[in-house]
Amino acid sequence: MDILFTNATILPMTAAGDEPKTFMGAVGVAGNRIALVTASGSEADAFRTCNPGVRVIDCTGRLLMPGLVNTHCHAAMTLQRSYADDIALMEWLNDYIWPFEARQTADDVALGMTLGIVEMLLGGVTSFVDMYYHENRCVEVARRLGIRAMLGCNYFDNNVDEVLPEAEKAVALAADCDRIQIALAPHSPYTVSPENLRRGKELARKWGLHFMTHIAETQDEVRIVREKYAATPVEHLDALGMLDDKTIGAHCIHVTDSDIRTLARRGVAVSHNPQSNMKISSGVAPVEKMRAAGALVTIGTDGTCSNNDLDMWDEMRTASLLQKVATGDASVLPAYETLRMATVGGACAVGMEGELGVVAPGARADLILVDMGGTHWAPGNDPIAGLVYNAKSTDVDTVLVDGRILVERGELIGTDTVALVREASRRVERIERR
Amino acid sequence: MDILFTNATILPMTAAGDEPKTFMGAVGVAGNRIALVTASGSEADAFRTCNPGVRVIDCTGRLLMPGLVNTHCHAAMTLQRSYADDIALMEWLNDYIWPFEARQTADDVALGMTLGIVEMLLGGVTSFVDMYYHENRCVEVARRLGIRAMLGCNYFDNNVDEVLPEAEKAVALAADCDRIQIALAPHSPYTVSPENLRRGKELARKWGLHFMTHIAETQDEVRIVREKYAATPVEHLDALGMLDDKTIGAHCIHVTDSDIRTLARRGVAVSHNPQSNMKISSGVAPVEKMRAAGALVTIGTDGTCSNNDLDMWDEMRTASLLQKVATGDASVLPAYETLRMATVGGACAVGMEGELGVVAPGARADLILVDMGGTHWAPGNDPIAGLVYNAKSTDVDTVLVDGRILVERGELIGTDTVALVREASRRVERIERR
Repeated sequence: MDILFTNATILPMTAAGDEPKTFMGAVGVAGNRIALVTASGSEADAFRTCNPGVRVIDCTGRLLMPGLVNTHCHAAMTLQRSYADDIALMEWLNDYIWPFEARQTADDVALGMTLGIVEMLLGGVTSFVDMYYHENRCVEVARRLGIRAMLGCNYFDNNVDEVLPEAEKAVALAADCDRIQIALAPHSPYTVSPENLRRGKELARKWGLHFMTHIAETQDEVRIVREKYAATPVEHLDALGMLDDKTIGAHCIHVTDSDIRTLARRGVAVSHNPQSNMKISSGVAPVEKMRAAGALVTIGTDGTCSNNDLDMWDEMRTASLLQKVATGDASVLPAYETLRMATVGGACAVGMEGELGVVAPGARADLILVDMGGTHWAPGNDPIAGLVYNAKSTDVDTVLVDGRILVERGELIGTDTVALVREASRRVERIERR
Repeated sequence: MDILFTNATILPMTAAGDEPKTFMGAVGVAGNRIALVTASGSEADAFRTCNPGVRVIDCTGRLLMPGLVNTHCHAAMTLQRSYADDIALMEWLNDYIWPFEARQTADDVALGMTLGIVEMLLGGVTSFVDMYYHENRCVEVARRLGIRAMLGCNYFDNNVDEVLPEAEKAVALAADCDRIQIALAPHSPYTVSPENLRRGKELARKWGLHFMTHIAETQDEVRIVREKYAATPVEHLDALGMLDDKTIGAHCIHVTDSDIRTLARRGVAVSHNPQSNMKISSGVAPVEKMRAAGALVTIGTDGTCSNNDLDMWDEMRTASLLQKVATGDASVLPAYETLRMATVGGACAVGMEGELGVVAPGARADLILVDMGGTHWAPGNDPIAGLVYNAKSTDVDTVLVDGRILVERGELIGTDTVALVREASRRVERIERR
């Protein structure tokens, strides 16, 4: 069904170097693409006349913008939200996270993924990049729920021989759904051998897939890589030929100036996950330095174990505030640049520049409406600042992915979220009893 | 009307050194006080039988806890939300904030205060500490809306002679409403002379009021105070006899170890405002050090110009995350301690220890219900962690202040918030045209 959004405050986020701006107007969607973006009432009327069956949605008081792109998460870990908090990293992994994961089945992973996707859709995330195991099972989940996804098949040295065939299966399963891309995702340069890193990258190249890994998340990782390979994690990955514009590097906290230049030169998409980095005290990524060096920096939530939600609004706000206090400069990462990271930037990271992250004719219709009517928005002096500094994920009113309305009036269409929440609690109890 | 809350997950936050815990039970309210807190069904039944007119509220799926105490804000500045962002501090004050304030009338301040209080009530803040001018006008606003407030009459050297008589008037206006306390609030040790600081403190003592000021918010402040008085801001204030357990010090970022010991020894309540401190890049307050030294550290939002909202959930989360990354220790400021700062701690700051910030028989009935049913709460592994790490202010479902229900099903009773939001926008336009 074609749709015409009228009376919208439109935030187009169009070009690479564009100026912050909103304007009042209309947006027409035909099939899965944006067909019209206009400030002209007569153009909107013409679109309506030419599309007799068009559904008209009056957006008075609401802002229309591109859906957000979450460039790093572990959506299935939503089952482990608040499972273990306020604990040092290694104790957290060894005593809580890994034992829980060892008891999980593929069905549990699919349920956790469902819960995570539902939370993201309700919060205006239209695309996400995932990294976990059993991703082949998650193809079906993402397809059913209608979100756009890049599903990264995560492997370590000890399971690479199982995961790579699983990944091939996932590629086949997703072949007829262009909303879903599969990617290969070795865990990190300190937990995966050079040989297995190379194997993944070669297959990714062969299959035309993106490649992703955690990079320089902790000082321990840097120490281990230095000891093993006499190189920084970035130098090590670069020497192995891992880094290019189809690589997503999560975190990139403990990077040298030379590492930053390498990330920029290779076109690696950095996924900055500020809340997770703060919560497990990994450190503060030098986002402003990376951006100044021309690196592509995007925003991700990481998993709900270390965040503890998949809320990109909170994440954008934290990204901006953290960089301001870390640099001592209140003018860095202004609101519009932060929004760019979460829209235009995310689109580049998943290889869909110009197709996603913008409101422009010809782009995919991955759009959201944000209700600006809450008292926490008043008096509405600047909607762009409002999106970063006072918007809540619950202000997201309507969500379209690929031209299809998935969320309306804040409710997910076609999913019984109450039953889902109940099932999630029961499932955790069952996993713990195993 | 008496109220009985049944089937609630109760978070009592009772004693100074208590353990994190929730339990299922019932809470009875008689008049403006809590009369019953029990896990026993028969005690709840007895309360119902003894109070035939009691209203019973079934809290299934909701958590009952003390209302939050916001210990530092400038609620009237809500009119300036998103008025000027991403700008260095002095440019922000000189070119935007102060010119706007110069054009404001007392009516505008009352409207801004209304908007701020409405936002706080909807977000579960039952008490707040304010610091602004025309506070005498705000007595009526706070009284009408039903919130509990400490209204700090802010002065500089150039208006102390107007503000102190205004404060006296405010004290008289608030005399018959025990929800409202007036306080004296010199702006800071670098903008108010020793003489005028002393005048304020002497009057505060005479009238039995709290005293509050910004302390060590920026490095510039520390430099100025050092140059003028050869002392740190804390040393300077202490030498003047300003610091005691009826003093609230906002920020306390750039404090020495000796300053911290002084703050703890004098019983000063520190109001930590992490989002504002990050947004205008003031720095990171040594919260963990202050707490370790025995200082009372509480949480405030600061004004919406530098935050940009009055959301204490977001503020608690940021306080915890920021301290974890700043100290490099993921175990500092765990969820429960962060909740204590915003409840029990806030109650101490306003001189109402044991009366507020706890769910205990005899305490004031300042209570909130938090809906834990959203997908962002699932699977609900730990409600205490959930409150800090994934709760949203929009999860606040019901708010009682002094036994009176002010918010129900997320709606403020008796206030047309749509009209208020509209009026706020119009008012800003009018102020700008002056």
